[in-house]
Amino acid sequence: METQTKTINGFNAEAIGKTVAAIVDNPKIAAFELRATNTWITGGHNRSFIQGFYGGCQEDTTREVPFVYDNDEPPILLGENKGANPAEVVLHGLLGCMTTSMTLLAAAQGIEIEGVTSRVEGDVDIQGFLGLNPNAGKGFKQIRVSFEIQGASEEEKQKLIALAQQSPIFNTLINPIDVQVEVH
Amino acid sequence: METQTKTINGFNAEAIGKTVAAIVDNPKIAAFELRATNTWITGGHNRSFIQGFYGGCQEDTTREVPFVYDNDEPPILLGENKGANPAEVVLHGLLGCMTTSMTLLAAAQGIEIEGVTSRVEGDVDIQGFLGLNPNAGKGFKQIRVSFEIQGASEEEKQKLIALAQQSPIFNTLINPIDVQVEVH
Repeated sequence: METQTKTINGFNAEAIGKTVAAIVDNPKIAAFELRATNTWITGGHNRSFIQGFYGGCQEDTTREVPFVYDNDEPPILLGENKGANPAEVVLHGLLGCMTTSMTLLAAAQGIEIEGVTSRVEGDVDIQGFLGLNPNAGKGFKQIRVSFEIQGASEEEKQKLIALAQQSPIFNTLINPIDVQVEVH
Repeated sequence: METQTKTINGFNAEAIGKTVAAIVDNPKIAAFELRATNTWITGGHNRSFIQGFYGGCQEDTTREVPFVYDNDEPPILLGENKGANPAEVVLHGLLGCMTTSMTLLAAAQGIEIEGVTSRVEGDVDIQGFLGLNPNAGKGFKQIRVSFEIQGASEEEKQKLIALAQQSPIFNTLINPIDVQVEVH
């Protein structure tokens, strides 16, 4: 750990610049492979493990134990609330990714932010999933995200919300993604 | 709780049939609005709260306290590993949703499953997020999902993996989604 380091929005300002310079010098270090594994428990209850990933041209070894997160369903969807529903989990990831994108890219530009809160709503018609209505669509029909940013002018807020939309997960949702599936 | 209820794959078999019949009778109960809120803490660390949702023509009140999940980044992405990275969180939601879709829809068809494990890898090139390469793309470039299903023939496995692909999150990822963003 360096001491006397300038931080902005909680990020090490010098490290942001060094990371960008390193990627410009060798774009391969920008390639990340992120991973998760999952084990079905019973009914709508299953458990994910998140630990290693590849990035910066190396396997990451900084996590001594995996993050363990449970998915379940509420009773109306035949589960027992032992974890959030997977669709809610994705909404949580979306808000987190947009928030980090905003605060990190703002820090890279020297823009300090006092506070950020956000809220998201997503519409799903489960007729699609159940195969009851081919017009219903199977995924989210619409997702609505609302941010509150403290300590920024109207003009800065517009700039910051544009930075939030650089988010990998925001862009994953608004674009079609190649998802390959295999079974053994 | 009913007793002497037949369960299949951990789901109440009778409840599945009743739910489908109720939706056929009144499709409005299939409309769900799922939600999350999030508060930035510092740097790449932020915290989501998941509790209420609308579905079955009513507000759900079964969760006495919210699910609380933290997002953070690993050190190479300028964080402190206080939670999984939001992109990993989305992969966790994807595996959970595909697993529940498979086991629930199999139960609806009377297909018993012994066990399911899965693994996912997703590629992100952070040049896109950082604005360093317009050709890099900002979201996941490709996601690869692999399932292991215990106690099923090859033919059953192919049928089960098709059921997994009814998943709302799988379909959210492979299709472009309307994501509305506002700031206050």
